[in-house]
Amino acid sequence: MNPFIQAVINANEEIYHLISSGINNALAVETTIGAGGDISTLLDIKAEDIFVKHLSSFGKIESEESGIIGDGTSHIIIDPIDGSFNFINGIPFFAFCFGVFKNGEPYYGLTYEFLTKRFYEAHKGKGAYLNKKRIRVKEFNQKNIIISYYPNKNMDLEKLRNKVKKVRIFGAFGLEMCYVAKGTLDAVFDVRPKVRPVDISSSYIICKEAGAVITDENGDELKFDLNATDRVNVIVANSKEMLDIILDLI
Amino acid sequence: MNPFIQAVINANEEIYHLISSGINNALAVETTIGAGGDISTLLDIKAEDIFVKHLSSFGKIESEESGIIGDGTSHIIIDPIDGSFNFINGIPFFAFCFGVFKNGEPYYGLTYEFLTKRFYEAHKGKGAYLNKKRIRVKEFNQKNIIISYYPNKNMDLEKLRNKVKKVRIFGAFGLEMCYVAKGTLDAVFDVRPKVRPVDISSSYIICKEAGAVITDENGDELKFDLNATDRVNVIVANSKEMLDIILDLI
Repeated sequence: MNPFIQAVINANEEIYHLISSGINNALAVETTIGAGGDISTLLDIKAEDIFVKHLSSFGKIESEESGIIGDGTSHIIIDPIDGSFNFINGIPFFAFCFGVFKNGEPYYGLTYEFLTKRFYEAHKGKGAYLNKKRIRVKEFNQKNIIISYYPNKNMDLEKLRNKVKKVRIFGAFGLEMCYVAKGTLDAVFDVRPKVRPVDISSSYIICKEAGAVITDENGDELKFDLNATDRVNVIVANSKEMLDIILDLI
Repeated sequence: MNPFIQAVINANEEIYHLISSGINNALAVETTIGAGGDISTLLDIKAEDIFVKHLSSFGKIESEESGIIGDGTSHIIIDPIDGSFNFINGIPFFAFCFGVFKNGEPYYGLTYEFLTKRFYEAHKGKGAYLNKKRIRVKEFNQKNIIISYYPNKNMDLEKLRNKVKKVRIFGAFGLEMCYVAKGTLDAVFDVRPKVRPVDISSSYIICKEAGAVITDENGDELKFDLNATDRVNVIVANSKEMLDIILDLI
């Protein structure tokens, strides 16, 4: 096995043991949300420590907590808990996101859905995989649309409701992107805007390799600036047809 | 231990083993939704067989698949998979619901969230419990509202959006009711209407014992007709204030 992937797996196993104890606390009866917040922050920092230990020899590590670590030609970007509100509040929908950029381009992505033990993974040009099985976006069917969305105040929610069959809103954007990649959702979009590109870098390459279309609010290709702290508008859709429906609404 | 509760636990353990194998299939890569639907129907029937075996000596069993079984003074009502679309499509949010009525009144409820192994449970007049710890609805705070909802075409979604801080839509109404009971959601409502009272009978008593307000679209107490196949409007809220906000929208 590629030593890098092995290091990722080792780090994930260590982080999973750590986070499992946090999950057991968070999934029990919630009485002290404040304490949950502390647990989450603590886990974020500890999870990053583990990743730095396992992976800093392979490249730079970007993260909110640690800044830039390492000095290779690759950038490693981690979001220890995508869906931290859910995690803190005992909602079983959150993931760990791990992305690698080489020379400023997405190169590898791994999004790990802890509770279901689902590994979403993609290498640039080699397809997207869920637990080692190839995944593809769902074929678009306008009579059977299921989406997740985070709208802004200008969006016409009535018009949206008439277009879609089902809505699911899980509150973990990077993981919801993987649900588009595996064909459960037709699309997910956030136009508040609240998404930080660095947080979705792993799911970005997974979606791309699964055949998804990913744009900004104008339908233009999403641009990654790895140093950005900006929040951006992101639309992830299984097809041009689905994208056009969303662009028409915002 | 009460022999009835022991029988419920025994049935749940057997059903959980059965459904776990179904979960493993459904949570793997989804390629054949149709086959998933068959799995769900098959599991529904098998789960009911297990319950009938363990519980028919205690009272009548009502279910979509089996009609009425048994001849006691109690009614046992089961919904083997609350959130069956989720189950079929690999969305980790579904539960098993088990309710008992005596002389037409809710008496006992158990809603079991499989993936997180959370047992929500209530006896009439004795409080609501999550894994044996007492739960209560969240205290209402109008600046921090988080809700789930299934609107109808007449509802003003813009107005709703201005009132709430966060939206989560999980697609399993009985389980979302338990999220109100444990204080994660402020409210959940379905005014399409799509909810069958018999499907939410366990969560109904859990919510009542946790301090929730449960009404129809007019703010009147929800009435249970156990033989009804009707779909009803249901609002479950943590407080009168929260209820009033919802009633104002529909």
